[in-house]
Amino acid sequence: MPATPVWSVDPRTGKQREEVAAEATPVEVDEAVRAARAALPALADRTVRAAFLRRAADALDGAGDRVVEAADAETALGPGRLTGELARTTAQLRAMADIVEEGAFLDVLIDHADPSATPPQPDLRRYKLPVGVVAVYSASNFPLAFSVPGGDTASALAAGCPVVVKAHPDHPATSELCAALLRRAAEESGLPKGVVGLVHGFEAGLELIRHPLVAAAGFTGSVRGGRALFDEAAARPVPIPFFGELGSLNPVVVSQAAAAERAEEIGTGLAGSMTLGVGQFCVKPGLVLAPAGDAGDALVKSLTEAVSNSEAGVLLDHRMRDNFVAGVQERLRLPDVDSPVTPGSGGEHTVSAGFLTVPAARLTTEGLHDLLLEECFGPVTVVVRYEDEAEVAAVLDRLPGNLTATVQLAAAECEGEGAGGRLLALVTPLAGRVLVNGWPTGVSIAYAQNHGGPYPATTSTTTSVGGTAIERWLRPVAYQATPDPLLPPELQEANPLGLPRRVDGRRLP
Amino acid sequence: MPATPVWSVDPRTGKQREEVAAEATPVEVDEAVRAARAALPALADRTVRAAFLRRAADALDGAGDRVVEAADAETALGPGRLTGELARTTAQLRAMADIVEEGAFLDVLIDHADPSATPPQPDLRRYKLPVGVVAVYSASNFPLAFSVPGGDTASALAAGCPVVVKAHPDHPATSELCAALLRRAAEESGLPKGVVGLVHGFEAGLELIRHPLVAAAGFTGSVRGGRALFDEAAARPVPIPFFGELGSLNPVVVSQAAAAERAEEIGTGLAGSMTLGVGQFCVKPGLVLAPAGDAGDALVKSLTEAVSNSEAGVLLDHRMRDNFVAGVQERLRLPDVDSPVTPGSGGEHTVSAGFLTVPAARLTTEGLHDLLLEECFGPVTVVVRYEDEAEVAAVLDRLPGNLTATVQLAAAECEGEGAGGRLLALVTPLAGRVLVNGWPTGVSIAYAQNHGGPYPATTSTTTSVGGTAIERWLRPVAYQATPDPLLPPELQEANPLGLPRRVDGRRLP
Repeated sequence: MPATPVWSVDPRTGKQREEVAAEATPVEVDEAVRAARAALPALADRTVRAAFLRRAADALDGAGDRVVEAADAETALGPGRLTGELARTTAQLRAMADIVEEGAFLDVLIDHADPSATPPQPDLRRYKLPVGVVAVYSASNFPLAFSVPGGDTASALAAGCPVVVKAHPDHPATSELCAALLRRAAEESGLPKGVVGLVHGFEAGLELIRHPLVAAAGFTGSVRGGRALFDEAAARPVPIPFFGELGSLNPVVVSQAAAAERAEEIGTGLAGSMTLGVGQFCVKPGLVLAPAGDAGDALVKSLTEAVSNSEAGVLLDHRMRDNFVAGVQERLRLPDVDSPVTPGSGGEHTVSAGFLTVPAARLTTEGLHDLLLEECFGPVTVVVRYEDEAEVAAVLDRLPGNLTATVQLAAAECEGEGAGGRLLALVTPLAGRVLVNGWPTGVSIAYAQNHGGPYPATTSTTTSVGGTAIERWLRPVAYQATPDPLLPPELQEANPLGLPRRVDGRRLP
Repeated sequence: MPATPVWSVDPRTGKQREEVAAEATPVEVDEAVRAARAALPALADRTVRAAFLRRAADALDGAGDRVVEAADAETALGPGRLTGELARTTAQLRAMADIVEEGAFLDVLIDHADPSATPPQPDLRRYKLPVGVVAVYSASNFPLAFSVPGGDTASALAAGCPVVVKAHPDHPATSELCAALLRRAAEESGLPKGVVGLVHGFEAGLELIRHPLVAAAGFTGSVRGGRALFDEAAARPVPIPFFGELGSLNPVVVSQAAAAERAEEIGTGLAGSMTLGVGQFCVKPGLVLAPAGDAGDALVKSLTEAVSNSEAGVLLDHRMRDNFVAGVQERLRLPDVDSPVTPGSGGEHTVSAGFLTVPAARLTTEGLHDLLLEECFGPVTVVVRYEDEAEVAAVLDRLPGNLTATVQLAAAECEGEGAGGRLLALVTPLAGRVLVNGWPTGVSIAYAQNHGGPYPATTSTTTSVGGTAIERWLRPVAYQATPDPLLPPELQEANPLGLPRRVDGRRLP
C-alpha cells in the first residue's frame, strides 16, 4: 500500500503548499514509541535534561524566522502573533529547565525509622519517577505553544519522559521543523534523538494511544476528538492517564454595577478578547452575562462598535470555517436570538466577527437554546441579558466545566461590597481559573498558573500550563528500609543533591 | 418490591448472624449523595474538619470493644489483629487532622503581577479546593482501615469532601456501626451527618459511581470489581477520577548471596508474611524468586517447616474459600509445579497455608504458567527457582504492576557490592514501594508512605495510604488579578492563616 501523503495547506487560499511527510504506518508508530522508550534511561540525569530544554529553546529562537514563516504559511495566524507564541514557547522550555534543576517537583519525603512506635515504623523515603513514554496530541490553534515544542512536550521532557508527538494536520511542516530542531538539540545534549518522536495521521494517533509502551498522554483540542482518545486510553488492557484539554465556554459575568460604571470599557475589552486570534483561543469568552436595561444596552452598543470595526480573519482551516459558519447560522435560527453584529463568512477564505444576544430566561431551563451553552470555535460570543442575580445563578448552574470564569465588577464591589463576593462564589465551582476585571485570553506562564478545569475543560484535575504541569508525568515510589548506598542520590540521608525535602513531617527548604 | 435484606454472616460457620440493613434503592443512593453534596459547604472550614476527624477517632477508640467484636464476628480476623487495625484507623484519622491543620496540601502558589514583563504578567494565586462528593468502595480484608472509617474516607474528609461509602458485604454490621459513630462525631462537630453516607448492595454501588453529583471514587478490592467500576467512571457523560487499588503479586527477589547468608531467616520471614491475616493482605508476597541450588533449597526447607507449623485459618467468606481452593488446585495441575506444603481446604470452614515451587524457565515466556503471575488471594505463595540473574530479569519483565517489590540481599550487597543495585534497579519500575530485607505486609502510616503502583496495583499514580493520599480529592483553582478583599483567606497577601506558600517562585515555610 502506498504511503498516504501529508500536505501542508495554505488556509488563506485553501491550496496545498507542499507534501511534507507521510502518515505513519503502525510499524512506524511502533518504531517511534520504541525509540522513545529506549531513550528513557538517558533522560534520567536532571542536569542533562535541563541543558537539553535550554538548548531546545535556543535552537527554536535561533531558527525563529524560519519557524514563524513556516507556521504562518500553514495557519495564517500572522507573524506578530506567532513571534509572540514562539517567545512564549521558548520561555516555557526555559522555565521547565529551572524547575528541573530546583527539584522540588520530585516531592522528596523522608520518614526515619522509629523502632519504638507501635507497630515499629520502618525507614521510608519517597520521590517521584517519570511515568514513561508520553504521547502528545498537538492543538490546531497553537502551532508552537501547544504543539511539538509546546507545554505538554516541555513538561514531559522536564519530568524525564520521552515524547512521541502526533502532529496536527493544520501545521505538518511546522511540526516537522520543530521536531527536527528538538531532535538536534537532544543529540547536541548527548541524548538519543528518539526522546522526541513525531507521527502524522489520524490512524497513527489511535495506534499511539493504544501502544503498550505509552504510559500517559497529553491532548489539546476538541471535545469530540479528546473524548474519543480519552475513551481509548481508558479502554486499554492497562489504562493510562489521559490529560486532555477539550473545550470551554469561559463565561463572563458583568455585574449590574460594573455595567453602570464602565459599560464602554467592558464592551471594548470583550471585543478584543473574543476576536483575538480570530476567536480561536480555548479561553475565548464565549458566554457573557450582562444585565438587561440601560447599562447593559450601553455595553452592547460599545461591543457592537468595536466588533463592527474588527477585520475579517482567516481560520486555521476550511473545515473550521465551514463549522463556524454553520454553527453561527444554527444559533441565529433560535427564537429570541439577535445579532447586533452578525458573524459569518467574510470573503471566500475569511470569516467576520460578530455576537449574538439572548434573554437569560431562554437559558435557565433545558431546551433548544442549550446549543448556546456549547463552544463555537471562532470569532463569536453570546451575550446573555439577565434581569437579576437569580437569573445569573440559574444560567451558571446549567454550564459545563470551564477553563476560566470571569467577573467584571465595579470598584466598590472589588472592596467586598455588593455582588462581588457572591458572583465570585458562583463562578468558582465552574472553572480552573477565575478572573476579576480581566479577560481570559492570555494564559501567562507562571508557577501559579492553572490551565484546566472541570470536564470538559479538562479530563483531569491538573494543569497543562505553569509550574505544576510537570506533576502529570510522574509517579511516586517509596523505598523502605533501603541501605543508603543503594538509594538514589535524591533520597540519600546526606542529601547530596541539595533537594528540598520533608523529613519526619517537617518541610525543609 | 420488598427491600433486599443485608445479612451479617459468620465466616467461622457460614451462618447468617443478623439482618443488618437493606440494599439501597436508586432513590436511597440519590438521597445519600444529595445529603453529602449539601454538606460540602459545611466542610470548608479546616478547623472544623480537623476537629471532626479527631472526634471521629476518639469515638471509634471509645467504642473500641464493640467495634472489634462486631468486626471479628463478621470477618474472623481475630481480636488481636482487629485491635491493631482499629489503632491504625484512628491514627490515620488523627494524622489527617494534623495535615489539614498544617495546610501544605493546599499547595498555595502566588505570583505577583509584573507589568514590565512581555507580555505583562497578571497577579496569579492558586490553591486547591475539594473536588466534591467522593464515593468510597470498602475492602473485604480491612473492615476498618480500608472501609467506612478507613484511609479513603479519612483523606477525602480531610480534603473537605463528603463521602458516601459502599459497604462491603463481608462486614455490613461493622460498616453500620462505624458509620453511626462517624455521623455522630459529625453532628457533635456541628456538621450535617450527611458528610458520611453509607449504602449497601451491588446495584447501589453501580448507581453510586454513575451519580452526576459524585466527583471522584476510591476503591480497594479485586481487579475484576475495580476494573468494572473504573470502566463505569470513565464511561460517564462527565468522567470522574477513579482511584482504585486492584491487585498485586508483590514479587520478592532473594539474591544468591542472601540465600547463602541467611536462608533460614528468609524462609521463616516469608512464611510469616504470606500467612499473616490468613494471606488476605493486598501486599502479601505472592511470587518469590529464589536461587536454584543448595542455598535456595535451604530457604525452601526453612519455609516448609515454618508453613507446616502454621494453623489453619478462616477466610473472610465462603466464596473466597472456594476461590482459594480452586485457584490452588488449578495451579497445582501445571507441569513442573510442586507443593512442598500443599495449601488447600483445612476444616469445613478453614483453609491451610502452603506454597508452590516452579522453575523460572516456565515463566520466562508466555504460556500456561502465566496463571502463576496472577494474584491468588489467601495463604499461598509461589517460589520461583532461578538459575541466574538473566532469568530473574526475564521473569520480572513479564510481571504486571505491583504495590510492592522486595529484594533480599546479603550484607555486602547492602553496601553496594554485587547484585544489590542491579536487583533494585530491576524491581523499581514494577512497584510503588520497594523494600530491602523486609517483608511487604505492614503498610505503615507515614508521610513518605506509598500504597499504589503501576496497573493493576492501582488505576492512578497516587497512594491510598500516607500523607499524600489527600491529594487525590483536590482540584486546583487560580485567581487572576483578584482584589485582596475578594480572595479566600488562604490566598490573601497578608497570609492570615499562616500557610506555607511558594511566592514568586520561592518556597516559603
